[in-house]
Formats: sequence, structure tokens, C-alpha cells
Amino acid sequence: MALNNYASGEWMPGISVDCVIFGFHENQLKVLTLRFKQTDIWSLPGGFVGVHEDLDAAAKRVLLERTGLSDIYLEQFHTFGCLTRIQEAKKQHKEVGDKMGRSQDDFDWISGRFITTGYFALVDFEKVNVNVGNLSDAYAWKDIQEVGELFLDHAEILQFALEQLRLSLDMKLVAFNLLTDTFTMSEVQSVYETILGKSLVRTNFQRKMLSLDILERIEKKYSGGAHKAPYLYRLIKK
Amino acid sequence: MALNNYASGEWMPGISVDCVIFGFHENQLKVLTLRFKQTDIWSLPGGFVGVHEDLDAAAKRVLLERTGLSDIYLEQFHTFGCLTRIQEAKKQHKEVGDKMGRSQDDFDWISGRFITTGYFALVDFEKVNVNVGNLSDAYAWKDIQEVGELFLDHAEILQFALEQLRLSLDMKLVAFNLLTDTFTMSEVQSVYETILGKSLVRTNFQRKMLSLDILERIEKKYSGGAHKAPYLYRLIKK
Repeated sequence: MALNNYASGEWMPGISVDCVIFGFHENQLKVLTLRFKQTDIWSLPGGFVGVHEDLDAAAKRVLLERTGLSDIYLEQFHTFGCLTRIQEAKKQHKEVGDKMGRSQDDFDWISGRFITTGYFALVDFEKVNVNVGNLSDAYAWKDIQEVGELFLDHAEILQFALEQLRLSLDMKLVAFNLLTDTFTMSEVQSVYETILGKSLVRTNFQRKMLSLDILERIEKKYSGGAHKAPYLYRLIKK
Repeated sequence: MALNNYASGEWMPGISVDCVIFGFHENQLKVLTLRFKQTDIWSLPGGFVGVHEDLDAAAKRVLLERTGLSDIYLEQFHTFGCLTRIQEAKKQHKEVGDKMGRSQDDFDWISGRFITTGYFALVDFEKVNVNVGNLSDAYAWKDIQEVGELFLDHAEILQFALEQLRLSLDMKLVAFNLLTDTFTMSEVQSVYETILGKSLVRTNFQRKMLSLDILERIEKKYSGGAHKAPYLYRLIKK
């Protein structure tokens, strides 16, 4: 029996989605990766597009299935359609498929030419419950500097997502999606620093953030000896 | 005999590219549109993706075929994959196909579910030689405020491209691709104004442009009585 029965006509041929799921943990930008069953091949979470499913809905479904989250920041950033992206595909798909007992029909379908649309998501790390799905047996939140080799062109997709995230930092102020509802200024600065990959001057950063009029300072609760505790902020709801 | 023989296996099924080609003429941002033969249906230039062709290469090919230009600014901006985009497709494809004597195989292929990747191009209006191709019998450079109805979701694709162009104005300084090699400051301001859809203050605009250190002022040639002629600038090559 076929494991997935991809070639059944349920999915659009030649089109996939891949999700770069960013989280922030211990002052470090992380990306969620999955390991194909019984292999050493790591990949970004991805999936196919149902014949009756919107492209964006396919990305949302993949996110929900892998993280348990539905109401999160998600941005389509690029579609990858080079022929070179699948030059190694047959070999990698064979290694993955052999471990899973994939049917020949499924192998032929999945190892053909694919273009893939990349989405990046920004999640609150604490809220994620990873479900690796039926193709993988492990997951890892990898530091973005230490991701190593990935399936197909997923390393390139990740780099592209990172560049887009950097552009979106100032333009769309997306970084707060990586934080919990309340945060210190120091945490905001850490998010920016790990995304930009460089240190920022505290006073300048704080002045810039406050000048944007998007942050609300929360009254400190009295707690003995905590007079030096940092202020907490939250995003002003638009 | 089939007109295009789309279903021959030469093209990837379900995937197309659409090109929003912007030009600047008489102080107005224009977009290139084509009219399907013997119909009143106007569309953006578009095409399919060869099974052995990169996605980006397909967009470049469409541009070359329609404008005669190859070395121009081209940016992929979004992939449109909603089911709603093809709800009207069968009807419109039938009207277009009937006029062209399209085969049933071609009709079935072309009127199925498609996702399309949008690219926008910025061209020097003077350099374009439009070739309408074998599906159209007319073209028009339409003012972006007066485009009217377009084929499928092409009006939405155009709006999306325009938003991306506005974002790219400051971030990537792309506007100069719409001008000839040398230009006056007033022409640069006109490009910005027509793209942004609003007037800008001349002195502020000029100060901002000059502060970017990307423009080089060209020596004015002496020409009798031209002492009040505006300065010419060109982009400093990086």
C-alpha cells in the first residue's frame, strides 16, 4: 500500500510550499527543521497544495500541522523555480523514500520537477508544540548560524527568508511576533541583534523604538527588592 | 490543427507567469496591456513555464518576446494561488479560445487550476518595441489610474505590483530604471510622484535625492540662451 498516494490526483503536480519557521529562544534566532525518518537528511517543514486548496491555505495547514499554531505571522516571500533545485532531488527522494517504503508511483510523482513557494512564519517559541508528522522522526530548533546542510535547496530558501525578515524588520516591525505579549526593551534589542547578526547601541536602539509610538510601558507591580527590575512593554493595539 | 498545443507536455501544467511592465511617459506611469484577438478582453503579458525552463527564465522570455528588451529591471514580487482567481477562467478562456479556434485539449489544459507568479519590470519607454504575439491583436500603454477591467485576476496582480514598486522606491532606488540614461531632477520627481500618486515638495525631494550620493551632475554644454536650462544628472555606476 502506498504511504501517501501523492499521485492520486488529490494534489497539484509540480507545486509545493516550504515554511521557514523562526523562533526566538535564549537570545538566539532559531529555525525549525525536521529529520526524515531513519536518515540524516534535515529539511524545512513543507507540503503540497490540494487541488481544491488555496496556495496560502496550504502554507497555513503545514504550519498548523507542525506547530499546532494557527494565528501567527506568515508572509509569502519568494517562489523558487530553478531547474537546478531539483538536480539532486531524485537521489535524496530515493534515500528518503526507501526508508519509508514509498511506492514507485509516489516516487515518480515526488521526484519530478517542482517549483516551491516559500513562506516565513514568526512564532512565539514557548507556544509551539512540534508534531513531526509521518515523514520525520525528529525535529530541531537550529541556530540560524549552525543549520548545516538541508534537503534540496532548503538552505538557500532559509537564506532568502532571512534577508526578507531583515528587510521587514523596519518596514513592517515584525520582530514583536517573536516575543511574548509583554517584554523588556532588552529582549526587543536581542531579537533585533540576532536577526541582524550584529550588536546595536542600547541608547540609540531604545530611542528609536520609543520614537515609533508603538510601545506601551506597563506599570511595574510592586515586588520587594525589584526596584531595579526593567520596565515591561507591550505593543499598542492598532 | 491546434493553435498552441499546450497539452503536448512541453509546458508545466498549472503554473504560469504574468508580467507587469511599467513605463514612464509624459509624466505618467503606464502599464503595458494586450488585447486578446477579436475580443474586448485586456490582459497583462504572460506565459507558461517550459518543463526545461527556469521560472525566472520564463518571465524574461515573455518580456523579451513582448518588448524586444532583455537587459531590464525585473523583480519577482508574489505568487497568486487562490482558487477564486480561476472562478471566471473557464468563461473567459472560452471567449478567447473560440475566436482563435483553440482545440478542446488546449481549452481543457488552459482552463484548469493555475497558480501564477507575478514579476514587474521597469523599462525605458522609448526603447520598447511591442510585439503583441499570436494571441493578441492590439496593445496599449494604459495610465495606471485608468486600466479598467483585466483578464482573470490581472487587475489585482497589477495593484500588488504597484504596492511592491512603491516599497522598492526607497529601499532599492529602482525608479531610475524608468528614465533614460540622463535626466533632470524634475523628471526624477515626476517619476516618484506618478508612482506614489501624490505631489512632493521640490526642495525636500531634491535635498533627499542629492543626499543619497547616487547622482552625478553632468557638465552643461554651452548652448546659446540655455543658461536657464536645468542640470542633467546620471546615476553613478556602482
